[in-house]
Amino acid sequence: MSLTLSPIGIIHTPFRTLAECPSNGRKPQPVPVCQVTLKPEFLPGLDGLAGFSHLILLYWLDREKPKPAGWKVTPRFDNQPRGVFATRTPNRPNPIGLSVVALDRILPDGRLEVRYLDCVDGTPLLDLKPYLPSTDSEADASMGWLTPHRTARPA
Amino acid sequence: MSLTLSPIGIIHTPFRTLAECPSNGRKPQPVPVCQVTLKPEFLPGLDGLAGFSHLILLYWLDREKPKPAGWKVTPRFDNQPRGVFATRTPNRPNPIGLSVVALDRILPDGRLEVRYLDCVDGTPLLDLKPYLPSTDSEADASMGWLTPHRTARPA
Repeated sequence: MSLTLSPIGIIHTPFRTLAECPSNGRKPQPVPVCQVTLKPEFLPGLDGLAGFSHLILLYWLDREKPKPAGWKVTPRFDNQPRGVFATRTPNRPNPIGLSVVALDRILPDGRLEVRYLDCVDGTPLLDLKPYLPSTDSEADASMGWLTPHRTARPA
Repeated sequence: MSLTLSPIGIIHTPFRTLAECPSNGRKPQPVPVCQVTLKPEFLPGLDGLAGFSHLILLYWLDREKPKPAGWKVTPRFDNQPRGVFATRTPNRPNPIGLSVVALDRILPDGRLEVRYLDCVDGTPLLDLKPYLPSTDSEADASMGWLTPHRTARPA
């Protein structure tokens, strides 16, 4: 079965190459403001977005390397191969990236200003969902092998 | 630009039709245990998943209706049209569903037992990511127009 997607817009970040991308979007200090631009035909789909402080963005990781052998990768901050589904590596069977972002501003032309993206400038946007803490937040979730690599959050 | 995905597995839930699906996976009481089955070639990608209490599942909403006119929908618990990107409606430009689920058990054959899915039985799985509270949890996020419809969480 082959399934087809079309980008709904484009993501602009200050990261021009994969090498410049942080391992996650909360690491750079200060965290840069990024922009999300929808194709004009999708702008009516933003109606009602005011009042949501956070969004989930899905995007197409279009600059990726060949798929990892045996579906294992060795993360850059680790020294042991891990299954791709136990990591957030972009080198996945289906290269869909996901970030929870803060929605700072909806500009009059519909562009969105957001924080916490880690993808490269020009990444195609696939979907944008409102973040719902009632179903999306698990503050006490345990992180397995990633526990010692946990990104600190400002208090 | 047209982008292509292939399912990596299949999701089994007790919901046989769209009409049986709850509006979110935490609503049914008791919450049913669902199963995720990967295609055999992807099983090595699960290595290292033990110790994560929660996952993010992405799946293909393959039973959907025609795309909504003007990218607005009227949710079943509301009386006003909202932009699709201000809702979690399955009727989206790219029909990718997302659920944060509790990972209860990894069975010896690699099947995963999870809770909090709301999709129909047989939904194709696209991706499985470990849930990282350090980047994915925003417990205090505001929910805009959805605030009065917030799903209660057990204490």
